[in-house]
Amino acid sequence: MAHLDASGPTVAVVGATGAVGREMLAVLEQRCFPLRALRVFASPRSAGSTLPFRGTSLTVEALTDAWPAGIDCALLAAGSGISKTMGPKMAASGTVVIDNSSAFRMDPNVALIVPEINMHADNAHSTKAGTSPTRGRIIANPNCSTIILLMAVTPLHRAFGIERMVVSTYQAASGAGWQAMEALERETRDALAGAAPRATLFHEPYAFNLFSHNSAVDPATGMNVEEQKMLAETHKIWNDPSIRISATCVRVPVMRAHCESVNITLRTPATLADIRRTLAAAATDPNYGGIRILDDRPANAFPTPLKAGGGDDVLIGRLRVDPSQLPTPPTATLDTTPTRGFDMFIAGDQLRKGAAQNAVQIAERIFTTAKR
Amino acid sequence: MAHLDASGPTVAVVGATGAVGREMLAVLEQRCFPLRALRVFASPRSAGSTLPFRGTSLTVEALTDAWPAGIDCALLAAGSGISKTMGPKMAASGTVVIDNSSAFRMDPNVALIVPEINMHADNAHSTKAGTSPTRGRIIANPNCSTIILLMAVTPLHRAFGIERMVVSTYQAASGAGWQAMEALERETRDALAGAAPRATLFHEPYAFNLFSHNSAVDPATGMNVEEQKMLAETHKIWNDPSIRISATCVRVPVMRAHCESVNITLRTPATLADIRRTLAAAATDPNYGGIRILDDRPANAFPTPLKAGGGDDVLIGRLRVDPSQLPTPPTATLDTTPTRGFDMFIAGDQLRKGAAQNAVQIAERIFTTAKR
Repeated sequence: MAHLDASGPTVAVVGATGAVGREMLAVLEQRCFPLRALRVFASPRSAGSTLPFRGTSLTVEALTDAWPAGIDCALLAAGSGISKTMGPKMAASGTVVIDNSSAFRMDPNVALIVPEINMHADNAHSTKAGTSPTRGRIIANPNCSTIILLMAVTPLHRAFGIERMVVSTYQAASGAGWQAMEALERETRDALAGAAPRATLFHEPYAFNLFSHNSAVDPATGMNVEEQKMLAETHKIWNDPSIRISATCVRVPVMRAHCESVNITLRTPATLADIRRTLAAAATDPNYGGIRILDDRPANAFPTPLKAGGGDDVLIGRLRVDPSQLPTPPTATLDTTPTRGFDMFIAGDQLRKGAAQNAVQIAERIFTTAKR
Repeated sequence: MAHLDASGPTVAVVGATGAVGREMLAVLEQRCFPLRALRVFASPRSAGSTLPFRGTSLTVEALTDAWPAGIDCALLAAGSGISKTMGPKMAASGTVVIDNSSAFRMDPNVALIVPEINMHADNAHSTKAGTSPTRGRIIANPNCSTIILLMAVTPLHRAFGIERMVVSTYQAASGAGWQAMEALERETRDALAGAAPRATLFHEPYAFNLFSHNSAVDPATGMNVEEQKMLAETHKIWNDPSIRISATCVRVPVMRAHCESVNITLRTPATLADIRRTLAAAATDPNYGGIRILDDRPANAFPTPLKAGGGDDVLIGRLRVDPSQLPTPPTATLDTTPTRGFDMFIAGDQLRKGAAQNAVQIAERIFTTAKR
């Protein structure tokens, strides 16, 4: 394999043939991640196939119960079942496991990390566990919708405190894997050929349709699992269970970037200029970054899935004062009124910052000197 | 023309070749609207073409400055410009004009009507104007997103009072006419053929994409025109300017039904059972109707555009307590806690209840004995 770096870690991508696994390879390549070696694992039926990487090809190895020695870091994107059974074995063998599944996210002994926001949580956990900072532990990658939301609002939370958020999502097919992207394409082709709507993967037809998120709905609360994740993971990442969140998660017929409509109530009033200044400063802060303001009112140019797709940044737009949280009806001076209520619309690539990129960034912080 | 009824009015559909105009013909046919005669008008370039109706065909007449005598009711779906110039002339000639455009909605002398909600507003206006209840005035049909929202929440407003709503929309192509539906289909075909995304009608590519609503954005407030309509029209229809609304309007790649994610703050606390009971009662109330609860948590069966498309009812689902408005963190007894905060997800056919059906229902209330 070309471009190896003896000072870097040996990295394994597990679930390498999936949508997130392939994106992990793309992100490792694009970010010039220093690798002593890269190994790719998938289910036995994919073993022997090859995946392109840095101009060469990697041969997929079968993931078995016997986790090989000498792997410093495993990027795990093979689903919760594999994570639960193999994650602890990998960690016990000395591998740092960065797990993209939900298996360990709410485990109190596992750090749940967005590097820009709470990399310190890993230090706290690894110190508590008494392990070396570069050996043998599990770190959880948050849910895609949570990562994208928190990238956009954490600078505001730090500056003004966020008391409450009402979030409605517009989630892409990719969050349910390549099968979902294929289902969207297949069902759309069928629809354009005149076929009656038919659900081939999800509980609802997908072509020219949208539906409440496909995760299970809690009969007691009416919240689906995706919505529960957004609440619980935000509380854990911000280390503040008092944050109030209403989330409505919806699957829309787009391929790979999630959008979210976000209504915010701050603890401390701010003007829209304060909000813009805070976000712009975070966008260029070497310790934050990863967000970009795209908010051109005259041109009606705001975040979209296509603009976010394939990119590293969470896009933020439709920034405005929420008239429903003003003490008096809105006026022309809306933008200069200090208020606690704001609206925004954000977009982020689900496979990149929502999954693969965030995992690789965690690995960068642990194994390399790169901060971004 | 078959099935004529000498006791009914002579009705004209103006803009009959457009998406809403065609739907007006379909709704008149399906609802067996009693017609003495039906005339169809469009721009001169469509004149002479024919449109199917009740098994026969109607010949399109050119709309000119000279509005013919003898038309009792005009259903106007030809855009704001035509409405502004021709609406007053039609009314002056004795025609009741039911206008689907935004031209007169906020005119204090024009009633803005959802028949289930505020038919009385027309009586008030026509009495004030001193005209006969069946002659010569303009009635405005509200914006589609507003109609669909208010159908779902008015029963709750009447029972408990709505203090605030945070609404995010998922709006179909049809809201921008048949050209938009064609653009969605055309751009999707091109995308599936491998073409790079290209905007052919809207300000953004539409295939496998979504974008902030295409209406102009107010540079002072950041609200687009669609969002402004939802605020102002709700205040007018409910006759209560104190209602607080945050609206975020988004165009999604679906054909003809809008969805809306709605977060509610009531004035008076209620339990979820109260909410369900109130909506179920309204659904079967002979003076309301037009809504249907579709809220099956175990089956994950909730409103979608495809389920609402082609139907008369606004579908209501994802009914749940909003945990962010509870005084304490959510518990398993969430659904029995009286609270002011609720979430729901609704869907309604944009061309039917959002436009054509609402207009025909207004005509029914004025010209026939039908109440629904």
